[in-house]
Amino acid sequence: MPSSQGIIVTEHTSKPWAGRFTEPTDAFVEAFTASVGFDQRLYRHDIAGSRAHARMLTHVGVLTQGECDTILQGLDRVEQEIETGQFQWSVSLEDVHMNVEARLTALIGEAGKKLHTGRSRNDQVATDIRLYLRDEIDAIQAELKRLQTALIDLAEREHDAIMPGFTHLQVAQPVTFGHHMLAWFEMLLRDAQRLADCRKRVNVMPLGAAALAGTSYPIDREYSAQLLGFERVTENSLDAVSDRDFAIEFCAAAALLMTHLSRFSEELILWASAQFDFVDIPDSFCTGSSIMPQKKNPDVPELVRGKVGRVNGHLISLLTLMKGQPLAYNKDNQEDKEPLFDVVDTLRGSLKVYADMMAALTIKRDNMERAALQGFSTATDLADYLVRQGVPFRDAHEVVGKAVRLGVDTGRDLAEMALSELQQFSDAISADVFEVLTLQGSVAARDHIGGTAPAQVKAAAARARRRVL
Amino acid sequence: MPSSQGIIVTEHTSKPWAGRFTEPTDAFVEAFTASVGFDQRLYRHDIAGSRAHARMLTHVGVLTQGECDTILQGLDRVEQEIETGQFQWSVSLEDVHMNVEARLTALIGEAGKKLHTGRSRNDQVATDIRLYLRDEIDAIQAELKRLQTALIDLAEREHDAIMPGFTHLQVAQPVTFGHHMLAWFEMLLRDAQRLADCRKRVNVMPLGAAALAGTSYPIDREYSAQLLGFERVTENSLDAVSDRDFAIEFCAAAALLMTHLSRFSEELILWASAQFDFVDIPDSFCTGSSIMPQKKNPDVPELVRGKVGRVNGHLISLLTLMKGQPLAYNKDNQEDKEPLFDVVDTLRGSLKVYADMMAALTIKRDNMERAALQGFSTATDLADYLVRQGVPFRDAHEVVGKAVRLGVDTGRDLAEMALSELQQFSDAISADVFEVLTLQGSVAARDHIGGTAPAQVKAAAARARRRVL
Amino acid sequence: MPSSQGIIVTEHTSKPWAGRFTEPTDAFVEAFTASVGFDQRLYRHDIAGSRAHARMLTHVGVLTQGECDTILQGLDRVEQEIETGQFQWSVSLEDVHMNVEARLTALIGEAGKKLHTGRSRNDQVATDIRLYLRDEIDAIQAELKRLQTALIDLAEREHDAIMPGFTHLQVAQPVTFGHHMLAWFEMLLRDAQRLADCRKRVNVMPLGAAALAGTSYPIDREYSAQLLGFERVTENSLDAVSDRDFAIEFCAAAALLMTHLSRFSEELILWASAQFDFVDIPDSFCTGSSIMPQKKNPDVPELVRGKVGRVNGHLISLLTLMKGQPLAYNKDNQEDKEPLFDVVDTLRGSLKVYADMMAALTIKRDNMERAALQGFSTATDLADYLVRQGVPFRDAHEVVGKAVRLGVDTGRDLAEMALSELQQFSDAISADVFEVLTLQGSVAARDHIGGTAPAQVKAAAARARRRVL
Amino acid sequence: MPSSQGIIVTEHTSKPWAGRFTEPTDAFVEAFTASVGFDQRLYRHDIAGSRAHARMLTHVGVLTQGECDTILQGLDRVEQEIETGQFQWSVSLEDVHMNVEARLTALIGEAGKKLHTGRSRNDQVATDIRLYLRDEIDAIQAELKRLQTALIDLAEREHDAIMPGFTHLQVAQPVTFGHHMLAWFEMLLRDAQRLADCRKRVNVMPLGAAALAGTSYPIDREYSAQLLGFERVTENSLDAVSDRDFAIEFCAAAALLMTHLSRFSEELILWASAQFDFVDIPDSFCTGSSIMPQKKNPDVPELVRGKVGRVNGHLISLLTLMKGQPLAYNKDNQEDKEPLFDVVDTLRGSLKVYADMMAALTIKRDNMERAALQGFSTATDLADYLVRQGVPFRDAHEVVGKAVRLGVDTGRDLAEMALSELQQFSDAISADVFEVLTLQGSVAARDHIGGTAPAQVKAAAARARRRVL
Repeated sequence: MPSSQGIIVTEHTSKPWAGRFTEPTDAFVEAFTASVGFDQRLYRHDIAGSRAHARMLTHVGVLTQGECDTILQGLDRVEQEIETGQFQWSVSLEDVHMNVEARLTALIGEAGKKLHTGRSRNDQVATDIRLYLRDEIDAIQAELKRLQTALIDLAEREHDAIMPGFTHLQVAQPVTFGHHMLAWFEMLLRDAQRLADCRKRVNVMPLGAAALAGTSYPIDREYSAQLLGFERVTENSLDAVSDRDFAIEFCAAAALLMTHLSRFSEELILWASAQFDFVDIPDSFCTGSSIMPQKKNPDVPELVRGKVGRVNGHLISLLTLMKGQPLAYNKDNQEDKEPLFDVVDTLRGSLKVYADMMAALTIKRDNMERAALQGFSTATDLADYLVRQGVPFRDAHEVVGKAVRLGVDTGRDLAEMALSELQQFSDAISADVFEVLTLQGSVAARDHIGGTAPAQVKAAAARARRRVL
Repeated sequence: MPSSQGIIVTEHTSKPWAGRFTEPTDAFVEAFTASVGFDQRLYRHDIAGSRAHARMLTHVGVLTQGECDTILQGLDRVEQEIETGQFQWSVSLEDVHMNVEARLTALIGEAGKKLHTGRSRNDQVATDIRLYLRDEIDAIQAELKRLQTALIDLAEREHDAIMPGFTHLQVAQPVTFGHHMLAWFEMLLRDAQRLADCRKRVNVMPLGAAALAGTSYPIDREYSAQLLGFERVTENSLDAVSDRDFAIEFCAAAALLMTHLSRFSEELILWASAQFDFVDIPDSFCTGSSIMPQKKNPDVPELVRGKVGRVNGHLISLLTLMKGQPLAYNKDNQEDKEPLFDVVDTLRGSLKVYADMMAALTIKRDNMERAALQGFSTATDLADYLVRQGVPFRDAHEVVGKAVRLGVDTGRDLAEMALSELQQFSDAISADVFEVLTLQGSVAARDHIGGTAPAQVKAAAARARRRVL
Repeated sequence: MPSSQGIIVTEHTSKPWAGRFTEPTDAFVEAFTASVGFDQRLYRHDIAGSRAHARMLTHVGVLTQGECDTILQGLDRVEQEIETGQFQWSVSLEDVHMNVEARLTALIGEAGKKLHTGRSRNDQVATDIRLYLRDEIDAIQAELKRLQTALIDLAEREHDAIMPGFTHLQVAQPVTFGHHMLAWFEMLLRDAQRLADCRKRVNVMPLGAAALAGTSYPIDREYSAQLLGFERVTENSLDAVSDRDFAIEFCAAAALLMTHLSRFSEELILWASAQFDFVDIPDSFCTGSSIMPQKKNPDVPELVRGKVGRVNGHLISLLTLMKGQPLAYNKDNQEDKEPLFDVVDTLRGSLKVYADMMAALTIKRDNMERAALQGFSTATDLADYLVRQGVPFRDAHEVVGKAVRLGVDTGRDLAEMALSELQQFSDAISADVFEVLTLQGSVAARDHIGGTAPAQVKAAAARARRRVL
Repeated sequence: MPSSQGIIVTEHTSKPWAGRFTEPTDAFVEAFTASVGFDQRLYRHDIAGSRAHARMLTHVGVLTQGECDTILQGLDRVEQEIETGQFQWSVSLEDVHMNVEARLTALIGEAGKKLHTGRSRNDQVATDIRLYLRDEIDAIQAELKRLQTALIDLAEREHDAIMPGFTHLQVAQPVTFGHHMLAWFEMLLRDAQRLADCRKRVNVMPLGAAALAGTSYPIDREYSAQLLGFERVTENSLDAVSDRDFAIEFCAAAALLMTHLSRFSEELILWASAQFDFVDIPDSFCTGSSIMPQKKNPDVPELVRGKVGRVNGHLISLLTLMKGQPLAYNKDNQEDKEPLFDVVDTLRGSLKVYADMMAALTIKRDNMERAALQGFSTATDLADYLVRQGVPFRDAHEVVGKAVRLGVDTGRDLAEMALSELQQFSDAISADVFEVLTLQGSVAARDHIGGTAPAQVKAAAARARRRVL
């Protein structure tokens, strides 16, 4: 989008609704209530909507073909002016719709004045935002897919790299790094599904609702919808002009997606710390310190972790905005755009940088495996071993708990104890116990759908590749 | 659910994980970290999950049929004790899972200790909540349907009752009351669709993820899933035990639904005011004042309007909760339940009371129609009339604006002016103009899909009846 | 602040921390992590901080007086370049601090490189934001005072204009319009107090905390603090660089203030509707419709009502941002600025437009008084009358309730009933009852501190004038 | 508070406002709109308010001394019944106020019916909540003080224990553990100040506002205020009954406090991990796993970290609740209590458990010091050393950056390099450089107010003890 701040003008243009007014708008009020500073971003979709509206009006006989052609040529010219930075945006004209239409009329005369027949800014802006959001969801899905693919690649490559699995940030059981990456994949797949579900409700055309009640012109809404690629038309005009559910639903899906990225970020930041040292984030994704010369900071994950706040906040903005609003359109609704735009930008940027970064991540397999040897990560395997020897699980748990306490006191892992030491806790233990106490034995044993066994991880990665939307 | 506060005991029971510990839990910490005070509500689903788990363990040969039968009988007995209020809940046993299992073992001995084989409380609680939420979504959908049906009934009955349509709470154009009710219907239909989409992601079984990595027992997850009516099993164990997306997605859908009810409430409160006086809310849905003897307050819509705050808040609670959590299960997740439970209760209660109230609402048709005659509600019709005479829309708009200004200054509606007066603003006006200036003419003219013409409203109501989920 | 979007450049400048890095920053990462796009707004405070830092370093002997003079002149020049739009902002230089310093060094050479001695960007940005917010709080207090004064003026002028007081949006008891305006005043006075309390915690100097641990240079923090007008210095360096409490506290105070404005807005919108018709908002604060020529919409209150969502959202953004952040500075914190800036702008704009609008509001006294005659607004007065005749309050309430029911059934107010009719409900009623049933009698009777009697309102307005901060 | 769920009854009691109603309340509506389930918690403050009201009414001559004595004795009896669990709460009586008053009247007859003279439930509930919150703030301040004292004790004891200071979770510079604890102290001190500021605005008496307009009885509000320990009376009756600012301000202060605890928790969880291993949380504050016998989980910090979500959520609930509410009291406001109560309970519990836990924490000084030796934590000291030799800071930064790169490549800290190696980066380095490269030298050098030098930490701890509120 061309920057426009330099060319917004605020001279006093006559308002298209000035007929019944006796006083001009206060200058500060004009700036305070204008939306053109941010909604100009919708120009492409506004013009697309106008093209379809003109063609539909012609189709039903409200405009002549000649008028239609003139309008379409004029709209092309306006779009070109905007894209080349020549367009002069005016705050007095309030919003993108009036700016485009005023320029159109300046360019083509009478025909331009007829374009607004049978529509209102209320259904026009609702149409614009839906067209915009539909495009953006598609772009976000593409970035999501790139990131998911990077995770599957990593999972395949590292399907047998062993790391400690944590619960409560305490070492729990060994898992594979590939398995961990596929956990992230699952979260993102749900995000993609949610966005796809949301898109169905975005892709419905409000045009034709006019101000709130529909219009007395013989419009053909299905015709416009087809031109604009909408799946359906809205069923109720009052709802159509006041509905912002689709934006809220999108922001809610975005908040979950960013929550996922915040969780990935937390792990990357931990893993990149000197204390964990499981991964190396390339220099090109890090920055340094102006005062501490040794610093290499994981800025990208930190920033993305912070950005979840922004998206949660915008979600609350929109929910607060709509709370208790009577039908139909109220000016409050103008506040829907900035939060939505910022959520879209945040999502696209965060996904893009994550997809690039994950593809370039270096894994420190030795460090991860060493860490998995700490913290009695195979204690559950010992309990399971005992159960297989006939000990009830709850009793086995207690036996192993006591062995662990000995380990804590003497600074040794279970695998480092003598058989006789282990046997003092239960006579069901024999020499084959040491097989289950290895990391490899532990992970390989979790050999079912969803389990961390390397073979399962490889199969899951293959399935994941097919499941990507 | 039986109340249990009176019978929770806090005597010191030995913890099932006490093996490696040297100090008992601090008494306040025990109460502070226990969840049984609220998660006992899940007992029915916890027991259902245990039944399926026992049958699956038997199916794969980990338990004998005899053990299985003993467990199933024991679980029946436990459930019965809970439902009859005889069960003694213990805070020392932390949660519903341990309480049920401890009682089971007390009742049936050794076999009870074997039930926890191949599972963990991490996958157990995830399974319980999903089973619970699946049931609750179904119950909510039933209430939603009842309310939607009440709205369709009203819309059919009042398809031609004229009221002022508002934008900016200023009279805009006449609409029908039936049309207005169908706008509400559309919002609820989207809610129902979102809940149905959410249910797909709820109805996936995490059981088998065990603590975080899967289990070394030869479990058959598809078998358990079938017993419990789950559509699929989760694909990744780390994700399965730490995923609370489904709860957040549900709360986000709930926040939108409550936002809708807050909007309906705002309108009902306005309509029930002396200033609007469009509807009468039955006495049985109102309360009075302890000091002002004349008061009849629309408590139900007010309270429901307030309750959107509660649901928005819980949504933020859950999003905040998950922000930056590393994998896999962390104790923080225990905080997921109370918000979720309260959202479910709020939704069910609000929908139920709304369905009852809407079915009993009285409409004051005369008052609504009188109000529609104020505020120049047919001004747009005059502009459209002019366009049909060949005046460009923007010029027609200005003509009507001037006529309205005369009306404001002389205290008359457009329909009350003489033809000659109107003609002073445009010579395109002739005697037939008065047809379009009536309320009936105005609404009937909006005769397209989504428009407010009575015929369209009737057709839309008929479609709505088929579109209900 | 000069717009700069057109002159931000992204050519590759060498990073000031590049020493330990082997790869350059990824281009997208550079743009994604840079803050100069929004933090350039802090340039004035950044330069002020640098001036004080240079003078302090000179004071303690780290810089020579000559170096100090050179730096101060250089900073003047940089500030001038920025204010005249000549400054070339660079994304590669990341933030306002580096941009200013790089330009300073380009202008004055070696001395510029010494300015960063004994400080870090961590304490520098914390200082900048506090200086910025201190200024903005003062500007906001000035607007608040203007609005409060407008309300007091209205209250004095309309101290005896009677309107219906509502609870549950049902007519409750008559009050005066002046009394109502002073209710708004009270809310704003608390806002002013909260902002003043917040300012105490903003006005504390973090400079000297350096990166996180303090610095090994012999700095004199009290000296810098005095130069910059800070009341105190922060007591702990780790806290100083990671504390954003002051921004959150400010946003929380702002959310309450905007909540108040949203409530005022709701009332103005109601009062400006055809149904209430209590006030006239001047044309200069309203806008029209592109399709409905008669519309005059209360855009300003509607937009302000919507903007509370924005501020609530930013508050949640910042709380989410800080949740679970370990000490000390993390990159996440960069996300603190945009929400804060937007809250400041929203507050200043909303207060300014409200102060202007309230000063220009027209009151329709007749309409308000007529509305107060509806809805049995003096029913409580009748009950109080009965109590004075010795009837227990609860019994009096019931008597009046029955009289009201008769009024509802027969369409008459209490004052319109015959004495004999009233007496059928209680023989404690005699002819003097009609005095208490007038609006004037009702409001005059509420004659105590906080009550709505015109004399009390006048006195309260006089006190309010003295209580303004 | 005695549990009461078992004894709430729902039989149909006649409503105190039933006079003007023709239909009884719907049974579900009665339960849905009743607040006694949660507001019974206010009984003590409700009764205290009634005592003061009765004495004030007697003081001004509305009640006789005999009536007053009867009422006070009756209230004592009611309070006793509640505290001994004998009181029968009724849902039909809606709320705590009606329940108490109905019982009072049952006990003492006519005099009880007179108690409600000159007040309404609107000002009564506002008074109750303020009394309640005032008490709770005092209790919270006491817990806060206990926790602050525990931190000061730790800081004094560990004023010279060296640990790595982190920024971006990367080792930055050495700090002392005592210094770190005092950073936490500073956050809590601000919390205590904010709560004290909030208390000023809580401790204002709304009683006398009656329903919304004040009362026609000759009440003496200052007299009641004095009896109840309020500092002032509210200045406007409309504001008094609809103001919930104090609750929101309290929740905002609570959200910041919980944000702080979430940050402490994050650090404790990190420090208790096998990877950091800086502290040992006593067994009595941890729990284990039902499946993994080796686990010892830091449940308390995890749970507290999660609970910040709950408080942020309740803050949003209340802000959403009040958004756009017209004056004066609306039923929505009933939704203020549950969030407030839960915030109070969460704060008190979290502070209590933290105060206990911090007093029992074990510090692993050796592990912390060893960690500080990693990550080139004294690199800044080397840069500062060079500056003292006359190298401009920016150049010194680059020199050290190159030395660090060598260290990274060869796996050595700066202190482990030979002098000649260091000198290859700058000839300003001589043998005395090694003094500044020690941890002790580094921390001792940061010797100014707010710096981490042990002497400063000791002095700061002493000051902290005096600064506690």
